[in-house]
Amino acid sequence: MSERVPALDALTDALQRLPGVGPKSARRMVYHLLERDREGARALAGTLDNALERIRHCRRCNNLTENELCAICASEQRDQSFLCVVETPSDIPAVEQAASFNGTYYVLMGRLSPLDGIGPEDLPFDGLDQRIAEGVTEVVVATNATVEGEATAHYIQDRLQPKGVRVTRLAHGVPLGGELEFVDGSTLDQALQRRYSLEE
Amino acid sequence: MSERVPALDALTDALQRLPGVGPKSARRMVYHLLERDREGARALAGTLDNALERIRHCRRCNNLTENELCAICASEQRDQSFLCVVETPSDIPAVEQAASFNGTYYVLMGRLSPLDGIGPEDLPFDGLDQRIAEGVTEVVVATNATVEGEATAHYIQDRLQPKGVRVTRLAHGVPLGGELEFVDGSTLDQALQRRYSLEE
Repeated sequence: MSERVPALDALTDALQRLPGVGPKSARRMVYHLLERDREGARALAGTLDNALERIRHCRRCNNLTENELCAICASEQRDQSFLCVVETPSDIPAVEQAASFNGTYYVLMGRLSPLDGIGPEDLPFDGLDQRIAEGVTEVVVATNATVEGEATAHYIQDRLQPKGVRVTRLAHGVPLGGELEFVDGSTLDQALQRRYSLEE
Repeated sequence: MSERVPALDALTDALQRLPGVGPKSARRMVYHLLERDREGARALAGTLDNALERIRHCRRCNNLTENELCAICASEQRDQSFLCVVETPSDIPAVEQAASFNGTYYVLMGRLSPLDGIGPEDLPFDGLDQRIAEGVTEVVVATNATVEGEATAHYIQDRLQPKGVRVTRLAHGVPLGGELEFVDGSTLDQALQRRYSLEE
């Protein structure tokens, strides 16, 4: 473009810091906000400022919250002896969709990754130990099904088993509603190896 | 999700006012901004406020600008007698990509649409008349290739021809690099009807 409008360019650049937004969609967003939805633009700026000011990590599980404790940690309905370990706060809403889970969470804020120089001392495992000491009897490790996620799960297993805690892992297999032809080979491998008897 | 965090929900709603952003990608953006890029979130809030405050419409052509006149209207290099009429400011960067255009613009801020109750009195045609009076000799109508865009083009033709202005329209046809099997029937129809002789 021959015209440079600094305020437009700065906003376009800022929008490209959002995941999944490239130069073209950023520019489309800019025109949409400034031409058709200035009210929405004001709302976005205001809610961003508000969230930056209010949102912090739960003192107990590292989930995002506006309070000292997140609603899950503060709830008396949740089973405090059953702990689900996830990599990031954004994994919590995903597990919460599984209506069957009524335990609490611990967010690792990452995963072990020797290649990136992230070792056990870089993640808050002391907070996890603390939770175990408070009476957790089972930990289900819900780190991602990646090499790093698996390594992290094994590390947690090694760390917690001596303390007499049952350590489990989310099952791997064919997604419900998934068609076999769209499932990758490694997943099918796992699904075959972990096949279960229908008579059970 | 069982947990409601008002500051997160408000930000998620605000992000969904962006074009092409649904609930899932909005939530992904929220976690990205708050967990991994608070600096980017601050930049976005700041540039939004800045743009809302500074960006207005060019007094002469309705393009978005920080000044009284946009850079194109203010430029002495642009041909003021050759005018390109577009529907919205976001169409200008698109036409500017065509390096061959060295004229100026007039933004209609919409198009005629009887079904939506938008008639000639609802669009700034008086500003267009004003530009013609200032010595425009050719108007190329670059409204969208939709029913409304075509109707708007014909209206402009009817309005300006009596004033002795040459009114033209962007050509329709097969996009360069476009493969025939992916071009829709109406476009191919146009491309056939407007076929040109290679001997010319």
